[in-house]
Amino acid sequence: MQASSPRINSERLWGALMQLATIGATPAGGVCRLALSEEDRQAREQLMGWCRQVGCVIEIDAVGNIFARREGRSAGAPVVMSGSHLDTQPNGGRFDGAYGVMAALEVLRVLHEQHITTDHAFELVVWSNEEGTRFAPSMMGSMAFAGLLSERDVLDRKDMQGRRYGDALAAIGQFGQGRSDRLIAAYYEAHIEQGPILERENCTIGVVTGGQGQKWFDLTLNGQAAHAGSTPMAGRRDALLGAARIIDALRKIATRFAPGVATVGELHVTPNSRNVIPGQVMMTIEIRHPRDSVRDQMEGEFRQALGAIASDECLTFSVETKLTQPATVFDTDCVSRVRDAARRLGYRHMDIVSGAAHDAIAIARVAPTAMIFVPCAGGISHDESESATPDDLAAGAEVLLQAVLESCRRI
Amino acid sequence: MQASSPRINSERLWGALMQLATIGATPAGGVCRLALSEEDRQAREQLMGWCRQVGCVIEIDAVGNIFARREGRSAGAPVVMSGSHLDTQPNGGRFDGAYGVMAALEVLRVLHEQHITTDHAFELVVWSNEEGTRFAPSMMGSMAFAGLLSERDVLDRKDMQGRRYGDALAAIGQFGQGRSDRLIAAYYEAHIEQGPILERENCTIGVVTGGQGQKWFDLTLNGQAAHAGSTPMAGRRDALLGAARIIDALRKIATRFAPGVATVGELHVTPNSRNVIPGQVMMTIEIRHPRDSVRDQMEGEFRQALGAIASDECLTFSVETKLTQPATVFDTDCVSRVRDAARRLGYRHMDIVSGAAHDAIAIARVAPTAMIFVPCAGGISHDESESATPDDLAAGAEVLLQAVLESCRRI
Repeated sequence: MQASSPRINSERLWGALMQLATIGATPAGGVCRLALSEEDRQAREQLMGWCRQVGCVIEIDAVGNIFARREGRSAGAPVVMSGSHLDTQPNGGRFDGAYGVMAALEVLRVLHEQHITTDHAFELVVWSNEEGTRFAPSMMGSMAFAGLLSERDVLDRKDMQGRRYGDALAAIGQFGQGRSDRLIAAYYEAHIEQGPILERENCTIGVVTGGQGQKWFDLTLNGQAAHAGSTPMAGRRDALLGAARIIDALRKIATRFAPGVATVGELHVTPNSRNVIPGQVMMTIEIRHPRDSVRDQMEGEFRQALGAIASDECLTFSVETKLTQPATVFDTDCVSRVRDAARRLGYRHMDIVSGAAHDAIAIARVAPTAMIFVPCAGGISHDESESATPDDLAAGAEVLLQAVLESCRRI
Repeated sequence: MQASSPRINSERLWGALMQLATIGATPAGGVCRLALSEEDRQAREQLMGWCRQVGCVIEIDAVGNIFARREGRSAGAPVVMSGSHLDTQPNGGRFDGAYGVMAALEVLRVLHEQHITTDHAFELVVWSNEEGTRFAPSMMGSMAFAGLLSERDVLDRKDMQGRRYGDALAAIGQFGQGRSDRLIAAYYEAHIEQGPILERENCTIGVVTGGQGQKWFDLTLNGQAAHAGSTPMAGRRDALLGAARIIDALRKIATRFAPGVATVGELHVTPNSRNVIPGQVMMTIEIRHPRDSVRDQMEGEFRQALGAIASDECLTFSVETKLTQPATVFDTDCVSRVRDAARRLGYRHMDIVSGAAHDAIAIARVAPTAMIFVPCAGGISHDESESATPDDLAAGAEVLLQAVLESCRRI
């Protein structure tokens, strides 16, 4: 590190995070700030106010993504961007999304207070509706930006109350005029890991090299509902017994293909009555791996196990593929800048593949992208107990600042 | 068989069953006749009309049980009773309950048309709310009769809409004046097996020697909800994985202790979201065996497996016993009369233990009791597809008639 290299203000970063967390704060210490809610509006207004204080010009695009621009020396040069999202899960925490936006804000504040002029413009960005809890799917804003969803499609999505996304957006005054197309030099997103690996490996910085591919399945197993008292064990066609064996088999497959993961997160039993043998089970299955070819192998083994178990238990089944998302490989130069910054700053760091989906996964389709992970306690997120230390959060922001400075100056 | 021995009218029995099945008939060929509903009222009125036509005197007790009495020669002699219930499951069939009542009606009709005088009075009985679907628990009427529930308790039970049992009973005009205490010489109940054993063994008559004891448990497994993408397989605390292993272990235990059975009928996952590792599973467990000591052994093995699996999967758990029902042994004389009648009539028969609960299980606490099972297709019941043949149903009624005649004349 050069002595003159600018540094972030750790207390200011923490203060901004804590102030933001008051908007939609829950009694248990978490945050409930659903996309396009009144709380989302307040958070957006707060953020835009802070950005204007450091001289940014605000643009909002047609799906509600916010861009706070700080001009660079070369007017036409591709822009460097950083950000994340302000919306949360219903029982969300204080850091998921918010951290990436506040870290980018801290970068803006350092650039402003130290009167740093960059070659390229820098933009803080807030992607609208990342969580997808109120309006499905998730990552709507970044997907629309990357051309993976049309603006029309986004605006017409409805929440459970039948409210249109476009109407909800207009109601909170965030229906923008669109944004002129411009080249992007680099996109960086700082985020809590939402997994336990950094904590376990005692690392402060995760240099994210890409995202796992994933495949989602809906599986329905059909047996025969029957009286639990008068039906002997032999001859039962118990759909839940089949499901239990499949859940166990999936774990064995995923363990063999580590770091692959497989999860049954949702399961519905029919008729779900204490003294009736389950006649039907509907369950979701998701399989993830950083390499698509290995994920395909995992899928093959899952289908083989499914067939064998169903036959053994006299069950019929149908399996439907709900999502196929290829693995993402981040930009080598952007990833190197993150890794180099972590090394120069002296943080314990490791390369890591993102297990979760992020706006950066969508943006990687249209711009050189990298992410910076910091540990969160126990790997827990999407929960009010989500927790990260001021020191780790500051370290991530330091790395972000260095990567942004590199990209703004040299590209 | 003596040539003069009275026989039932098979077509009349089937006709009565089919006519009863029109009350609450569902498009799929089943019956929906919830306890104390308008349909239940119609079925009760129909049944009482039929009983009056054969000279019976009707009494309704304080919890809605109906007694249709045909006097015997000896005024003070203990009464012989037979019956079952008229209420059904929401997607019930045409035979569960209805058959036992219509078989007793057919006995009344034979006694009436052949001018048979018996020593003991004979009563057809309809037990109120056997299914327990609308008002929990099941077998309310027979349990109250047997003194296992107080009348006050029954009347104050509420359905999901908050409607009191007592009010619903009054609304359908079935709030009776009570019934004078009298000794019971014997109680017989004819019923479809609701299991596959008679069909599999090619038997027409099941001589029911008693009922399995059962124990119900509510088990809650607590792990840690976490992101399905970013949490490696190693170190997960997946409550559903624990549940899957317990379901599998229970089957192995029950199979080893055949004819014992163990069933997980109800299972709830929290948060039950596709990309979240299940943090909690609530499941019901029931364990049944004809011998209480063996059922206790099964419970012991279940608890041992539970402890081992929970420890292995880093889960905590709580298990609550919801019901302990000892095994029932029916009256030797009553059972012998059923067995002898089946033999004399030339039906293939076998001794069988009831896997399901029945009103007879409650009545056995206060009166000499036996049951007569007939096969049902595939052992399926509590379903609109429930099916039994006219011949098998007639055979069960023939056996009932002989057992009732024996009891009425000779006791």
